[in-house]
Amino acid sequence: MARIVQKFGGTSVGDIDRIKNVARKVEAEVKAGHQVAVVVSAMSGVTNQLVAYCRQISGLYDAREYDAVVASGEQVTSGLLAIALQELGIPARSWQGWQLPMRTDDVHAKARILGVDTTEIETRLARGEVAVVAGFQGLGTDGRITTLGRGGSDTSAVALAAALNAERCDIYTDVDGVYTTDPRIVTKARKLSRITYEEMLEMASQGAKVLQTRSVEMAMNHRVRVQVLSSFAEARGSEIPGTLVVDEEEIMEQEVVSGIAYSRDEAKITLLGVADRPGVAAAIFGPLAEASINVDMIVQNISENGSLTDMTFTVAKTELERTRQVLEQARALLDYRSIRTDANVVKVSVIGVGMRSHTGVAQRMFRTLAEKGINIQVITTSEIKVSVLIAEEYTELALRALHTAYGLDRA
Amino acid sequence: MARIVQKFGGTSVGDIDRIKNVARKVEAEVKAGHQVAVVVSAMSGVTNQLVAYCRQISGLYDAREYDAVVASGEQVTSGLLAIALQELGIPARSWQGWQLPMRTDDVHAKARILGVDTTEIETRLARGEVAVVAGFQGLGTDGRITTLGRGGSDTSAVALAAALNAERCDIYTDVDGVYTTDPRIVTKARKLSRITYEEMLEMASQGAKVLQTRSVEMAMNHRVRVQVLSSFAEARGSEIPGTLVVDEEEIMEQEVVSGIAYSRDEAKITLLGVADRPGVAAAIFGPLAEASINVDMIVQNISENGSLTDMTFTVAKTELERTRQVLEQARALLDYRSIRTDANVVKVSVIGVGMRSHTGVAQRMFRTLAEKGINIQVITTSEIKVSVLIAEEYTELALRALHTAYGLDRA
Repeated sequence: MARIVQKFGGTSVGDIDRIKNVARKVEAEVKAGHQVAVVVSAMSGVTNQLVAYCRQISGLYDAREYDAVVASGEQVTSGLLAIALQELGIPARSWQGWQLPMRTDDVHAKARILGVDTTEIETRLARGEVAVVAGFQGLGTDGRITTLGRGGSDTSAVALAAALNAERCDIYTDVDGVYTTDPRIVTKARKLSRITYEEMLEMASQGAKVLQTRSVEMAMNHRVRVQVLSSFAEARGSEIPGTLVVDEEEIMEQEVVSGIAYSRDEAKITLLGVADRPGVAAAIFGPLAEASINVDMIVQNISENGSLTDMTFTVAKTELERTRQVLEQARALLDYRSIRTDANVVKVSVIGVGMRSHTGVAQRMFRTLAEKGINIQVITTSEIKVSVLIAEEYTELALRALHTAYGLDRA
Repeated sequence: MARIVQKFGGTSVGDIDRIKNVARKVEAEVKAGHQVAVVVSAMSGVTNQLVAYCRQISGLYDAREYDAVVASGEQVTSGLLAIALQELGIPARSWQGWQLPMRTDDVHAKARILGVDTTEIETRLARGEVAVVAGFQGLGTDGRITTLGRGGSDTSAVALAAALNAERCDIYTDVDGVYTTDPRIVTKARKLSRITYEEMLEMASQGAKVLQTRSVEMAMNHRVRVQVLSSFAEARGSEIPGTLVVDEEEIMEQEVVSGIAYSRDEAKITLLGVADRPGVAAAIFGPLAEASINVDMIVQNISENGSLTDMTFTVAKTELERTRQVLEQARALLDYRSIRTDANVVKVSVIGVGMRSHTGVAQRMFRTLAEKGINIQVITTSEIKVSVLIAEEYTELALRALHTAYGLDRA
C-alpha cells in the first residue's frame, strides 16, 4: 500500500471519453491497494477560451478577476472526474483550491504555494476515498481565488505529493516520458527510464516542455519522486511506463550526458564598439533589468585595441524589439557604435550530472559541431550543462550529430 | 441615493459584447448615485453544456459534484463583468457564493437559501464599489458549493436585495416586462406597469415564465420590490421601463383582472365508475403522492345513482404515463371501471386581486367561453384566480376572447 498523487493534463481530460479513461487509470491504482489523490487541469482549450474572454474585455484586466474566471476550468474537470470515479464504484469527491485549502500568496495569476492543508483528505484517503483536486488554483491570504500561472497544475500536484508525503507523483501527459532529445527530430532518441532533478530542471529550462520548471524545483526541494508518463499508453507488466525524475542517489549507473535540449525561443544581440572599462556590463544590463527583460547567455569579446569591445547576449525572441528600443534609448549613456540582432539562432544544450566527474564533455561537443562545419556563436556552461548558440538552420544536424557523439542513440 | 440590486440572465450576458452592454447598464445606476449590487447568471448555453457533461458520465450523478461543475458558469460571468466594470472606471469585484457567503442548506442541486452575509459588501457598497455576485449558487453547511435549481439566479437576486434592504431588485431579462397575457398570441396584450406579488405568483405558477415562482415567494415574504425589464431596450425618461412587482398597497387603481395565463403542461385523467364513499379521494391520491406525482385540478362529479361517481384531475403531461401505471397497479384497491386520459388540454387562468372585492368575475369567464362555443371540462378557483381546463385547440380563441371581455386590450 502506497500513497500516490496522479496528475492529468488538459489533453488527458479533453473530452468526456477521455475523462472516463482517466477514471480507469485512477481505478487501476486504487485496485492495486494504493491511496490516491488526483490533480486535474482544465479540459484542453478551455483555459485559452477563458483567457481570451478576459482579454476581449480589457487589455489590463484585474488579475484577481482573471483568476476567478480561469480557475473555473479546473473546477469543472474535478467535479466531472469525481462523478466518473463514482460511476466505477470508487468513493471520490472533488476539492477546489479554496476548499483544501491550497494556501498561496496574493500574487494573482502567478501565485506561489505557501502550504497545503491535507488534514481532511488524509482522513478520507485512509478510508479509501479518492481526492480529486482542482489543479492550478489556490486560496490567497486575501480570501480570493488565485492561480499559479500556466502549467501550474504540475506544481499543484508536486505540492500535494509533498504535503501528503506521497511515494510518487505521476504526471500523465501526451508524451510517454522524457527523451534523450526531441524524438520528432532525432528518430533514434531514447526514452530515459530515470533522470535526476538537476538534469530535468536543465532540460525543462532549456526547452524540453514536458514538465514546468517550477514543479521540478519544488520536487527537488521536497524530494518528491515524479514520474512522467502517457495517459494514452497502457502499462505493460513491471516495466517502468514513463520516466522517473528522482534524486541522484536513486540512479545506479549515471550516464555522463543524459540528454540534449534545444530552444528556438532566444534571439542574439550584439553591441559593437562598446568601451572596454569597468562597469560597462552593469551599464548595459541595468536598463534591461529595469524593463524586466531577462538576459540569458552573455559573452564579452576580448577587445582588439584595448579600448573598445563587443558585447553579445541573448533575450527571448518575443522581447527582441523591446530590447532594441531600450538599448537605443540608453545610447547616450552606453556609447556603443552599433547594434546587430539575429533572431535566426538556436540554443543547443548538452546536459548530464555525470559532467561533474568527467572531463572532455564540452570538448566533444565543440569537435562534433566543428566536424559538421557548424560555427559556434556563443558558449555558456554550468556544472551539469554546456550550451552553445548556433545558426537555426543547423538545429537538426547538430542534434543528430551530438546525440550520436554522446552515445545516446537507441540500439 | 438608493441601494439597488440588478440581476442579468443568461441571454443578457450571452457573449462578450452583451457583458459590456450589461456593464453600461450598471454604470447608469452608479452614475445616478446609487449603490449597486449585481447578480449574474451563466452565459446562455453554458449551464446546459455543463449539465450535459454530468449526464454523459453518469445517469445518477452525485448532486454535490454536479453543483461544483455547474456553479462554474456563474463564476466566469461574475469575473468577466467585474473586469468590464473596471474597464469603465467603476470599482468592482466578483463574489462567489462561498465568498459572501450565501448560506444554504445541503440539498444539493436545489438548495434553499438560509441567509446572506452582507457585512463586507455593505462596507464596500458604501465606498462606491459595485459587488458582482455569482447567482444560482451558495455554500452548504457541509462547506461545499450548492446550487439553487434552474432559474435560481432570480432567487439569489431577491435574497440579496432582502439582505441588503435594497430599494429595488431589477430583473433584466429578454422580455420587457409582465404582460396581461402572452403577446405572441394576443397582439393587443398590454405590458403591466405594476402587478402585486400574489398576482405575479399566480401568473408564474400558471405558466407565465418571466420570473421563477420561488423568487416571487421570497420577494413577497420579504417585501422586496421587484422590477422586470429588458436588458436590450433603452429606458426613456422617467417612464417605468418594465413591470414593478410590488405590495398591493403600492397600486392605486387595481384592475379587477390583471392578467390571463395559460399552461399546456397539464394532462387530464378521469377515473370512471369509482365508488362514491368516504375516503375514496384519499385512496386515489395516496398512491400518487407516494409516487411523488403532483396533482393540480381535482373535480369529483355528482354520482348519478348514489353509489358510483367519476373523478377527474390533472397532472403534468410528463407524468401522464407514470400516473396511469400507478393507478392501474392500485386498481384492486380502488375498484374503478375504467381510466380515460386526455393530453390535448390547456388550463386558462384569469388572475386578479380585485376579485376579492368584485363579484361576477368567474361568471363573465364562463359566459365568454360559452359564447365562443368552448366547453369547460374542469373548473378550479382560488381567492384571486379562476382556472378552467378546455380543449387545447381553443387556446388562442379563448385567450383573445377573455382578454377583450375583461377590458384588457390595448387601446
